[in-house]
Amino acid sequence: MTILAVGAQAADQPLDRMEITRRDLGAHDVRIEIIYCGICHSDLHQVRSEWAGTLYPCVPGHEIVGRVAAVGGHVTGHKIGDLVGVGCIVDSCQHCPDCDEGLENYCDGMVGTYNGPTPDAPGHTLGGYSQAIVVHERYVLRITHPEEQLAAVAPLLCAGITTYSPLRHWGAGPGRKVGVVGIGGLGHMGVKLAHAMGAHVVAFTTSAGKTQDAKALGADEVVVSRNPEEMAAHAQSFDLILNTVAAPHDLDSFLALLKRDGTMVLVGAPATPHPSPNVFNLIMRRRSLAGSMIGGIPETQEMLDFCAEHGITADIEMIRADEIEQAYARMLKGDVKYRFVMDIATMAG
Amino acid sequence: MTILAVGAQAADQPLDRMEITRRDLGAHDVRIEIIYCGICHSDLHQVRSEWAGTLYPCVPGHEIVGRVAAVGGHVTGHKIGDLVGVGCIVDSCQHCPDCDEGLENYCDGMVGTYNGPTPDAPGHTLGGYSQAIVVHERYVLRITHPEEQLAAVAPLLCAGITTYSPLRHWGAGPGRKVGVVGIGGLGHMGVKLAHAMGAHVVAFTTSAGKTQDAKALGADEVVVSRNPEEMAAHAQSFDLILNTVAAPHDLDSFLALLKRDGTMVLVGAPATPHPSPNVFNLIMRRRSLAGSMIGGIPETQEMLDFCAEHGITADIEMIRADEIEQAYARMLKGDVKYRFVMDIATMAG
Repeated sequence: MTILAVGAQAADQPLDRMEITRRDLGAHDVRIEIIYCGICHSDLHQVRSEWAGTLYPCVPGHEIVGRVAAVGGHVTGHKIGDLVGVGCIVDSCQHCPDCDEGLENYCDGMVGTYNGPTPDAPGHTLGGYSQAIVVHERYVLRITHPEEQLAAVAPLLCAGITTYSPLRHWGAGPGRKVGVVGIGGLGHMGVKLAHAMGAHVVAFTTSAGKTQDAKALGADEVVVSRNPEEMAAHAQSFDLILNTVAAPHDLDSFLALLKRDGTMVLVGAPATPHPSPNVFNLIMRRRSLAGSMIGGIPETQEMLDFCAEHGITADIEMIRADEIEQAYARMLKGDVKYRFVMDIATMAG
Repeated sequence: MTILAVGAQAADQPLDRMEITRRDLGAHDVRIEIIYCGICHSDLHQVRSEWAGTLYPCVPGHEIVGRVAAVGGHVTGHKIGDLVGVGCIVDSCQHCPDCDEGLENYCDGMVGTYNGPTPDAPGHTLGGYSQAIVVHERYVLRITHPEEQLAAVAPLLCAGITTYSPLRHWGAGPGRKVGVVGIGGLGHMGVKLAHAMGAHVVAFTTSAGKTQDAKALGADEVVVSRNPEEMAAHAQSFDLILNTVAAPHDLDSFLALLKRDGTMVLVGAPATPHPSPNVFNLIMRRRSLAGSMIGGIPETQEMLDFCAEHGITADIEMIRADEIEQAYARMLKGDVKYRFVMDIATMAG
């Protein structure tokens, strides 16, 4: 089937409306009419070829929510009319140890929702800035939030799981002090989720102006990270710091805030390296610097269910499909609270 | 009491014989006649003021073995004539959470065996290149190896525990693939210990000439880390890599060898930073880069008992007290298999 999408024909061209095709429904496939798609920083990196290997035409978007329009004959978990989501993953090898453990995000054969290898035309996957998508049932998530929250659920599919997974893996919860560095698309979800998990949450921001906002998101305390005295007051006190900042920055000032055996986990990768972290900061307190990438499909479902139960959604600003370039420009300035979501219905207008 | 020691009066002066005093025996103190003292790279850094803050006179040495000569009235765990050891720690606050857990090595008030603060003259601790030492019983270890192995036990007090502790903490054992980077004083102990713990051990060395030696130490495989093909053959296969190399080097080539959820733990801190590690290597497989420093007193005892049970000692070359400068010169060239040990009896000669 042929549908409308928004994407780019080359790295130096603006995103525009285009026609794309979606594959015929396979036995294990779910066809989804997309209602909303969140706008992730990765979308911009990929479509502008700031990461290596972008294939064109490029249609970004991996924070997809919509309604099931058709299911293949062997599909058991989804039925027509269900509200569902698709995140960053639309396929994986399905038989390696990672897949067996439900950690498809770490499978060598993981296929991203856009720019991933596929036999479908045009040979690489096309993402959620589009009217519909066909996805193997394994990678389709159930949404149990009230339907009126659907747009604000979309960012959970990437920003939500990317922060939820490391918070769970490294044990955020009651009695634990958890820092969240950077209060943007990822960080605002990190604060909400860590708070809902019962941790004592400290938000780190470079902007004193974000203090009230961060508290409203659920932070127990807010630290302006440019202020050495405020930082020093938290020395050696954190069990876990979730660092969402992808721009190169001094990691040592945060590593020094970890307790013995504490971990700082990075979920953003900078285009140029961070200054090399001081090994003494690791050795002196048996600290760890770790990384985490999105999350597996079972954990993504767990995250959506957790969010529905706790009334958690993203804070969003809705845009029309033809406003994507302006949204990117504002995103680059950090001028969004905290995630843009595209209303796919505007694409046909 | 006044005794002989070997140390330096200034950073630019050679080590020489000197007289020092040891405190009178307190109720919880053990006085030890030192028989052997291992020569650690840290000794050289400290005595030559390559690390900040060296106080003079400086008497290095924190791989101490000897015999109990006297005990204070409240000492219960040691008696005159016992073979004992003292490692890197001679005091700590004794009441913080770290001390309560037996992790005195991470206590903010940890006092090093040399260059640490003390009310004893001259105001800083003086180490084991000396005929005797007086140490609180808590920091005195029991040695159950046969007496004829005593010299080769000395390096266990630093090189042994520094490698044993992270191997235990990150779970080296049967079914686990463990790498050891650098086959020197620390690394040769890491290979022996990981092998005795039942892990599959891979030694990484820059010198093809060390292959047979590393296998003799207990390595199941040896990889020449300068050879990209040999390295690539081990991609994504390690649970744990113990990196003992203190010189700045490319961490990424080792991080890429870790499985998902694998950890590389650094036990050496370079004087100038390592090249900044690529964050993608951490994120893509949820890997960790960690540090570890020596080990606590209970774990040091556990390590000594483990080594006695498994017949493990260090491979050593014995030196006379007046050969320390030549030993340092050879150590700087990596020309030692694998640890120098000073025969303290030669000090009076």
